Amino acid sequence: MEKASYTDMWENLNLDIEAHEGLLEVLGKFYGDIYMSQQGRLQGMEYLDFVLSEVHGLRIQELVEAKEQGRKIIGTFCVFVPEELTLAVDAIQVGLCAGADAGTEAAETVVPRNTCALIKSFIGFKMAKICPYTESCDLIIGETTCDGKKKAYEAFGEMAPMYVMEIPQRKEASERALWKAEVMRYKEELEKLTGKTITAEALKKSIKTVNDKRRALQRLNTLRAAVPTPISGRDVLLINQVSFYDDPIRFTNSINTLCDQIEERIAKNEGIVPEKTPRLMLAGCPMAVPNWKLPYIVESSGAVVVSEESCIGTRNTRDLVDESAETIEEMIDAICERYMKIDCACFTPNDERLENIKKLAEETKVDGVIHYSLMFCQPYTHETFKVEKALADAEVPMLAIETDYSMEDVEQLKTRVEAFVEIIS
Amino acid sequence: MEKASYTDMWENLNLDIEAHEGLLEVLGKFYGDIYMSQQGRLQGMEYLDFVLSEVHGLRIQELVEAKEQGRKIIGTFCVFVPEELTLAVDAIQVGLCAGADAGTEAAETVVPRNTCALIKSFIGFKMAKICPYTESCDLIIGETTCDGKKKAYEAFGEMAPMYVMEIPQRKEASERALWKAEVMRYKEELEKLTGKTITAEALKKSIKTVNDKRRALQRLNTLRAAVPTPISGRDVLLINQVSFYDDPIRFTNSINTLCDQIEERIAKNEGIVPEKTPRLMLAGCPMAVPNWKLPYIVESSGAVVVSEESCIGTRNTRDLVDESAETIEEMIDAICERYMKIDCACFTPNDERLENIKKLAEETKVDGVIHYSLMFCQPYTHETFKVEKALADAEVPMLAIETDYSMEDVEQLKTRVEAFVEIIS
Repeated sequence: MEKASYTDMWENLNLDIEAHEGLLEVLGKFYGDIYMSQQGRLQGMEYLDFVLSEVHGLRIQELVEAKEQGRKIIGTFCVFVPEELTLAVDAIQVGLCAGADAGTEAAETVVPRNTCALIKSFIGFKMAKICPYTESCDLIIGETTCDGKKKAYEAFGEMAPMYVMEIPQRKEASERALWKAEVMRYKEELEKLTGKTITAEALKKSIKTVNDKRRALQRLNTLRAAVPTPISGRDVLLINQVSFYDDPIRFTNSINTLCDQIEERIAKNEGIVPEKTPRLMLAGCPMAVPNWKLPYIVESSGAVVVSEESCIGTRNTRDLVDESAETIEEMIDAICERYMKIDCACFTPNDERLENIKKLAEETKVDGVIHYSLMFCQPYTHETFKVEKALADAEVPMLAIETDYSMEDVEQLKTRVEAFVEIIS
Repeated sequence: MEKASYTDMWENLNLDIEAHEGLLEVLGKFYGDIYMSQQGRLQGMEYLDFVLSEVHGLRIQELVEAKEQGRKIIGTFCVFVPEELTLAVDAIQVGLCAGADAGTEAAETVVPRNTCALIKSFIGFKMAKICPYTESCDLIIGETTCDGKKKAYEAFGEMAPMYVMEIPQRKEASERALWKAEVMRYKEELEKLTGKTITAEALKKSIKTVNDKRRALQRLNTLRAAVPTPISGRDVLLINQVSFYDDPIRFTNSINTLCDQIEERIAKNEGIVPEKTPRLMLAGCPMAVPNWKLPYIVESSGAVVVSEESCIGTRNTRDLVDESAETIEEMIDAICERYMKIDCACFTPNDERLENIKKLAEETKVDGVIHYSLMFCQPYTHETFKVEKALADAEVPMLAIETDYSMEDVEQLKTRVEAFVEIIS
């Protein structure tokens, strides 16, 4: 990253320049080790390398310029926030989930120690003043998907402009009514923030934009299922991570270009790994940038990741909004319907998730599943038991891993993953 | 407990007789040490001693007899389940929260280790077959107040007849609509279970019955605030615990009799402890039978507990249902209104709780507050930070304690509590 040209911008965003430089240095080294060391990567990944190298530079500059033009920046932590509405008021939506241990000590002065690493991380990034995304936001949207986030937003709201959506916990008629009321409330909030009224035309267009992004990622997920797999799991995770903060149209075009290259590779029967390489699915908690720990361990242990069942993965891309609606009312209903298909562990029961995992395991021809839970994430840790049972019924081996963002357990995890890979080989 | 006469009953309930005997033995010893050792107790406490000594005996026999007469038994884990509706179909409501380490190892095969002791306990009691209440239930009502319970009920539902109510997470109009729908759904479920239709007459009567119970406990809470306090905190906790499973009318009468005796004691300016004894409030997570650990530590450390801000405490008794309603519809609305006043940490925001704690601290003239969280209880552990700040503003000292049901940390807790008592003395 060109430090000189961005330092003023970061200062204007009130970042702690020294701490931020330290973060970028670690991030750069980490990225070099985990990503740039890979052999035989697709040419289209250069775009992702560029985006990542400019994650706190060029993209932030774009946000700053957009703000100068009067556009608003909306931060999110969850796939339940309807980007369709955000785009329909010409605002920009960026994901704020964070995947690195930073500011943890400060975070633990406002949330309990027994809080998952993702929550401590976004609070820590804020308190340490090292996240230019958080600092660029005009409004940050929280949601009630888990106790940890729900209550952490109360503390976070004392530091940042916070707005919380309620996500229901069942999917019956009265919960769907609540969800629709929440979607409408979000629409009104956006209209108030921007002074714009969402038109049918704008909403129709933004529904298509977000669907196109999902379609590109669906295409990628279908292509990577080839044997041998043409792309590493690390690279696809990175793509999913970038999908949360890159410009959606530019991102979609880049992913489609990459998919063209993948098709060529598949036509030549080429893979990123040998055909017999054990294929794994990662299922469970989201892995936010730069949380590449587990995929790196897996892919350094003789296996390859071919599917990510998580919010930063298929949970965010599997379902499209119906595009046939014409009126605002119909489009809102279509949006509500689509988001209520999300198989988040916040729902009880959440049996769809078990079906979706089994289906994805079959479609991506996996030899096993690693269920990944962030320590203290109660919803996904509870579902580990159910997923294990469902996969056992389908005769798919599963390994349950519970970890955080520290590097202390890397060797231990590597030993467990290697043993698992050996069993399923 | 007269073992001989109840063994058949326990066998019919499919209890593990040997394990159950072990539990009763520990419980008896524990009760002797913590309760019977107290000096100068009120005569009315004999009723509570009797109830507790017959907790798995006479009361279960009453439930069995009620079932023989066609009445249904409803188990609950939470103060959100409207007992008014349960009584209106002539069913019996009993609390199933459990306060002892038992069956923990078994419980950890179906829920994560990082689950609070209360949840592991009710699952462990079920799996170890030592809870005659759980085994007597025709229907068990869960609710979505926390991630841990919400997801644990999915596992519990595979072992017991489970029904889950959704509790909303905010208190706005759309959430109130959801809550009303849930109350109506519970009403229908009860009517289906019992074959009875709730009449205005029956509901009016049951509203009064439950309000009377709350009024008796309110009276007790007002009286105990006297200086010197006429009753130990342990005894009042026991009363609150028993309020969840005793017959409501008999219980109310007994508590009012006890209150008469307390009034006599106050008139004579007599206390259970000397006037200068430091007075403490316990605030936070509920303490289910036989979780008397912290009150015992406090009251063995030179202080006395004069208020319990918890679900097994003032959270369950502070608000009454408006009795002026005449139609079913009006009564349901009054019930909904009353339950939405509960200041559970499941709500965001939950600022009422801070106000209620400050008010209770003032009313009960406390010298300090101990905030009690069960380890891994995210909602209350998060609120610890806010309560501490609110109390600091009100110049009330607070000590935060996070623990579970084990006895391993008793000495450490005692040291901390003694130090706190010394500071506030």
